[in-house]
Amino acid sequence: MNWAVIMAGGVGERFWPMSRRTRPKQLLSIVGKRTMIQQTVARLRGVVAPSRMVVVTTADQVPLVRKQLPKVKHIIAEPVGRNTAPCVGLAAAIIGKHDPSAVMVVVPADSYIPDMAQYRRVVKDALEYAVRENVLITIGIQPASPHTGYGYVQLGESITGRISRAKRFVEKPDRATAEQFLASGEYLWNAGMFVWSVGAISEALAKHQPDIAAGCRAIQAAVGTPAFTRVLKREFAKMTKISIDYAVMEKAGNVVVAKGDFAWDDVGDWAAIERHQVKDDAGNATRGEFVGVDAKNCVIVNDTGKIITAVGVSDLVIVQTGDATLVCRKADSQRVREVVKQLATQAKYRKLL
Amino acid sequence: MNWAVIMAGGVGERFWPMSRRTRPKQLLSIVGKRTMIQQTVARLRGVVAPSRMVVVTTADQVPLVRKQLPKVKHIIAEPVGRNTAPCVGLAAAIIGKHDPSAVMVVVPADSYIPDMAQYRRVVKDALEYAVRENVLITIGIQPASPHTGYGYVQLGESITGRISRAKRFVEKPDRATAEQFLASGEYLWNAGMFVWSVGAISEALAKHQPDIAAGCRAIQAAVGTPAFTRVLKREFAKMTKISIDYAVMEKAGNVVVAKGDFAWDDVGDWAAIERHQVKDDAGNATRGEFVGVDAKNCVIVNDTGKIITAVGVSDLVIVQTGDATLVCRKADSQRVREVVKQLATQAKYRKLL
Repeated sequence: MNWAVIMAGGVGERFWPMSRRTRPKQLLSIVGKRTMIQQTVARLRGVVAPSRMVVVTTADQVPLVRKQLPKVKHIIAEPVGRNTAPCVGLAAAIIGKHDPSAVMVVVPADSYIPDMAQYRRVVKDALEYAVRENVLITIGIQPASPHTGYGYVQLGESITGRISRAKRFVEKPDRATAEQFLASGEYLWNAGMFVWSVGAISEALAKHQPDIAAGCRAIQAAVGTPAFTRVLKREFAKMTKISIDYAVMEKAGNVVVAKGDFAWDDVGDWAAIERHQVKDDAGNATRGEFVGVDAKNCVIVNDTGKIITAVGVSDLVIVQTGDATLVCRKADSQRVREVVKQLATQAKYRKLL
Repeated sequence: MNWAVIMAGGVGERFWPMSRRTRPKQLLSIVGKRTMIQQTVARLRGVVAPSRMVVVTTADQVPLVRKQLPKVKHIIAEPVGRNTAPCVGLAAAIIGKHDPSAVMVVVPADSYIPDMAQYRRVVKDALEYAVRENVLITIGIQPASPHTGYGYVQLGESITGRISRAKRFVEKPDRATAEQFLASGEYLWNAGMFVWSVGAISEALAKHQPDIAAGCRAIQAAVGTPAFTRVLKREFAKMTKISIDYAVMEKAGNVVVAKGDFAWDDVGDWAAIERHQVKDDAGNATRGEFVGVDAKNCVIVNDTGKIITAVGVSDLVIVQTGDATLVCRKADSQRVREVVKQLATQAKYRKLL
């Protein structure tokens, strides 16, 4: 059967003040009306039933995840953050207990993919291929720009349809390299979306990251027993903190790429949302009450009934929630994390985290 | 006896969102802890007793003026705004009824003059001179910069101490002219502060603006009677809307200048307040909760318990009140009025005016 793993471990500091520890980006309506994680579930409709979805998140987020995804049964809190390899292993252990011959698609909870139909075709193709072959599939996104913030995967020999061999994985490139990649047509963005059978990923973890594989076997044995939480906590703490890319994808010999020919955006910061919103005549992407006088190309997110006004400014992000206001140069949107770090140093601001 | 007239008719749109119709600039603590009008009263201590002060304001502001100035007895609401000449005539009528031989100093309610001692010396000198001579005195401020937003008065022949004849009044000059004025040492800022006897100003109004003088005589006859409010309303509506500068000072032959050798600031907009506040290491003048990351030379006024944060921005004014937030390029501070005008066009925003 088809299963899905939704990785929702992010803390989303770049979307402060809207994002908080208990409500990070994936649990917010950053783009569109539904939250990012609700869109992620909806996007898999017809491919994976909600009863066969596993959301892996943090304890802080569990209550809100349950509320937002009432139909999803498997919601697991990681006892500690251990990056994506232990997360994938844990999910595979749980799925394998219910359905040892399962194939699974692994996706982040917080990407934006507007073309759901095309997305479903790609994921279905990959799942069907993973049923037949003992492979590890990464869904590579056709790059829309020479982005230096993403990893890339180079296509090797074509196998069938949109499936090709993976020649090599490349870390975030410099600008010139990224431009070469884009021009060559051989490189795809490595978007953190994977497809494989429980058997294939378990075998790969056993081979390349035996400590994680051993922990996952112990966890699997405890699934459905009263010892589960205790075992999970104990085993997770021992696992190496490593990404699935480093741990497995860059080492395994049976890695293939499914070409993802759909628009994809990881919506990495406030500035990103203007790509997906209708703008006013002055180029402002606004949500909520706003009055501008000669205000241009701003991103305004007003989560309150109170008004935001701007005069003579351009290329700013202005976000207002019930208890905080952010004014940020659009080009510095990634630095919103630094505000969160500063707030964390003072007890009086802890309620804002 | 010495009397004072405090002109508090301004609507203060440039200090929105803190200023509102019922609480304009003079009733706010824009600079310092006390409100501008409280500072104006305190500045006259030892020169004029609060019982001999007349505040002329709008009906909207009367309740708050009474609250802020409990010792001031004469608080008069103008039925309609008619600029400064009718305001001065009205005040002279009231004062003249109580004390026909009074001398009076007329001041705006919303200037900032930190050196109270020097201010008192100048006002006292002028009042003493006005007791002896039938003159109209304007207190001219020694200019600190070639400001193009103020009118100037050219000094004539010196009379005694800091009193000189007034040679001519000049409207807001262009930059080059203002620089010449500053370099010459002959020009002072016309700051809207005047000293004269009730007799001298009544005589001048009768000569140069007889309609206002006639109205003021009718009002004076009604002072202390039940007809006062009705007469005031009727007579005020008929008066010419004109400034005391145009109506009298630029025409009369007995105008003299008292040199005001003290720092003076009309605090015309949000950007002005940074001149009177201690700044942080990054040049930010802040009031209230604020956390900046690479935020420079900003003016932050936070009237709420909620935090304002700023990342990567410079030369902005950010003001937050309980129901509104303003983000304004510092150089565009005067344009805050345009926001108020925009808000006035929509019923849903009327509560913000």
